[in-house]
Amino acid sequence: MLVVKKFGGTSVGTPERIINVAKRCIEDYRKGNDIVVVLSAMGQSTDELIDLAHQVNPRPPKREMDVLMTTGEQVSVAMMAMAMDALGVRAVSLNAFQVAMHTTSQYGSARLKRIDSERILHELEDRKIVIVTGFQGVNKYDDYTTLGRGGSDTTAVALAAALHADACEIYTDVDGVFTADPRVVPNARKLKEITYDEMLDLATLGAGVLHNRSVEMAKKYGVVLVVRSSLNNSEGTMVKEDVKVERMLISGVAVDKNADRISLIGLKDVPGVAFRVFDILAKANINVDVILQSIGRDGTKDISFTTNDDSAEDALKVLEDNKERLQYKSLDIKKDVAKVSIVGAGMMSNPGVAAKMFEALYNEDININMISTSEIRVTVLIDEKDADRAANAVHDAFGLAE
Amino acid sequence: MLVVKKFGGTSVGTPERIINVAKRCIEDYRKGNDIVVVLSAMGQSTDELIDLAHQVNPRPPKREMDVLMTTGEQVSVAMMAMAMDALGVRAVSLNAFQVAMHTTSQYGSARLKRIDSERILHELEDRKIVIVTGFQGVNKYDDYTTLGRGGSDTTAVALAAALHADACEIYTDVDGVFTADPRVVPNARKLKEITYDEMLDLATLGAGVLHNRSVEMAKKYGVVLVVRSSLNNSEGTMVKEDVKVERMLISGVAVDKNADRISLIGLKDVPGVAFRVFDILAKANINVDVILQSIGRDGTKDISFTTNDDSAEDALKVLEDNKERLQYKSLDIKKDVAKVSIVGAGMMSNPGVAAKMFEALYNEDININMISTSEIRVTVLIDEKDADRAANAVHDAFGLAE
Repeated sequence: MLVVKKFGGTSVGTPERIINVAKRCIEDYRKGNDIVVVLSAMGQSTDELIDLAHQVNPRPPKREMDVLMTTGEQVSVAMMAMAMDALGVRAVSLNAFQVAMHTTSQYGSARLKRIDSERILHELEDRKIVIVTGFQGVNKYDDYTTLGRGGSDTTAVALAAALHADACEIYTDVDGVFTADPRVVPNARKLKEITYDEMLDLATLGAGVLHNRSVEMAKKYGVVLVVRSSLNNSEGTMVKEDVKVERMLISGVAVDKNADRISLIGLKDVPGVAFRVFDILAKANINVDVILQSIGRDGTKDISFTTNDDSAEDALKVLEDNKERLQYKSLDIKKDVAKVSIVGAGMMSNPGVAAKMFEALYNEDININMISTSEIRVTVLIDEKDADRAANAVHDAFGLAE
Repeated sequence: MLVVKKFGGTSVGTPERIINVAKRCIEDYRKGNDIVVVLSAMGQSTDELIDLAHQVNPRPPKREMDVLMTTGEQVSVAMMAMAMDALGVRAVSLNAFQVAMHTTSQYGSARLKRIDSERILHELEDRKIVIVTGFQGVNKYDDYTTLGRGGSDTTAVALAAALHADACEIYTDVDGVFTADPRVVPNARKLKEITYDEMLDLATLGAGVLHNRSVEMAKKYGVVLVVRSSLNNSEGTMVKEDVKVERMLISGVAVDKNADRISLIGLKDVPGVAFRVFDILAKANINVDVILQSIGRDGTKDISFTTNDDSAEDALKVLEDNKERLQYKSLDIKKDVAKVSIVGAGMMSNPGVAAKMFEALYNEDININMISTSEIRVTVLIDEKDADRAANAVHDAFGLAE
């Protein structure tokens, strides 16, 4: 078996934790498996490097920021190889240049294009554990790039695909994927298996332990993902195309308190209005989530949408700047809202899932602001203060704890 | 003019100092010069990385140690490029892979073999300041290497040679090369110029601000070195093949308190004894300095040599291990000794220089243990307690302060 194992910054945050991860990998290696380890930068080192950069330049050029940031993973992989050597196992660290990890050119948010597998396969044949820097790549100018958020997960999945690995294990500080956030819903249950599509929806909705890009890539290349804890030996959750276990109606409940609702009031009720609004937002690089348009009345209509806390101010600004072009009466923002979603491939063949969710909320006297649905997802926007109560009520209504 | 400027770890030890170095380089750049900057790791970062490594492995593999260490210079060059950007100048950082800096394979003590100059020249044509990681290289296995002690100086000189630079400026925390260590000899004087050979002897004798390897390389490729202060704008000392200024009898006095004397007493007075002794030491990688062999008497002779504090214990051990083979009566070590040397290309054509030195020491009532000379150098071994007094006496005797 060839297994790619990815450990995040917390898991390698101290020399002691690095030794623990090394032991864990060696255990698997001694069973005869080929092991490729992908690491993030140690704990707080990323923040420290950003802070250092800002001391010489408040807006550091992205190319140089990537040169600086890539040192973080390089420290991790060297330390891990040293720890394994101390435990009597041959290991070798490789950075993005050595692998090589070819990416697109955008510094800070590059995308993986191609991975050369020769060097890694050669080292594996030599019975070494291969330790690869996550998050980083090299572009066509022979410059370092970084992959942006969730980058190390993406590196691990891409490596698993390139090497035709039998599995890609993503180690986190939780035991796997749960039916809901256990901090919010105390009787949330760990899922044994989940489909890529369900995982994608959960990731988008803020409940995911995995980043969307890595799940998309895993789906595209059929890489079996295993989300498991770096702190214990519990089995984790398997993410794959088709799950064997009896299909549940829904797989999980996700809560995203990071949502803001922005409303444009009194837009002219003529064709092309919605296009103009969202075109302007897209060009300003603002991610829009749930969209609701009121039915026209008296020749005007309202458009509301949700975005996350980070983008809300930018969205307001760009909409204000374009007030003349868009011709709305007023602009409104509501920050104390939350999205609660249910996700499940099972709902495709089961009508009435949405109704059941609404009933659960009604029974709790929780008012729904907006509704949005997809084939395998129902999302409602509610007041933030009701979010945890809503999540528990919905979780119970679908019997997810059993 | 194309100028290579090298700044050590102290000069880039804090964000403020990095900004200062950036300003200094930009000043020169704005005069129309092409600037290549070579940097060491920031201040204490090397020690911190070594400490980190030892927390997972008391004897870290050298290959991985180099992977870890090279992150130090990478942080420096990224920070410098950011600082220059903040000051409105286009700059680009390059690491050993990007340049590329080809070295021999030995991790931790590689030697530069070849430098590709295309990328650097291309960036210079684009009117960018090019900032290169010192100390590091890449070997034929596509692995990071480091150059060992004085590595960043060597990188700078090698780059100056490869790029046919007009000068290679080595910035330090002193104003240049002095006739003696100003902390020991208060009226020591800064030299305007010095030859490669004199500088080599001064470096070997522990008085040099430059490492031997970099001076040797500068001599080999005819690179004009300038040793100058990173703290002020004073002119520094030029190191080159031939000096224009009126030749002084000697250029400087060097003191090395880091010397130990080891004596083998009662060796058999037969051919091949000295060979065996120093062959054994060489194979144990022990650098031997001054050697003195007594005239044989009663069929036995003594051999004494000096080595530095770091190697003395190893030397004693290897000699004890080989006692049977070498057949000496006893082994003696004297640690409180110092070497005092005078260096000067001028002494080649002036007999009596050594005598003048001995006279100065005699006048101070300082006893000489051992003597060693070369064409442009006279070294004496004396008691460590007399070292500073000896240096001042010799400095005065040759009128170096004038």
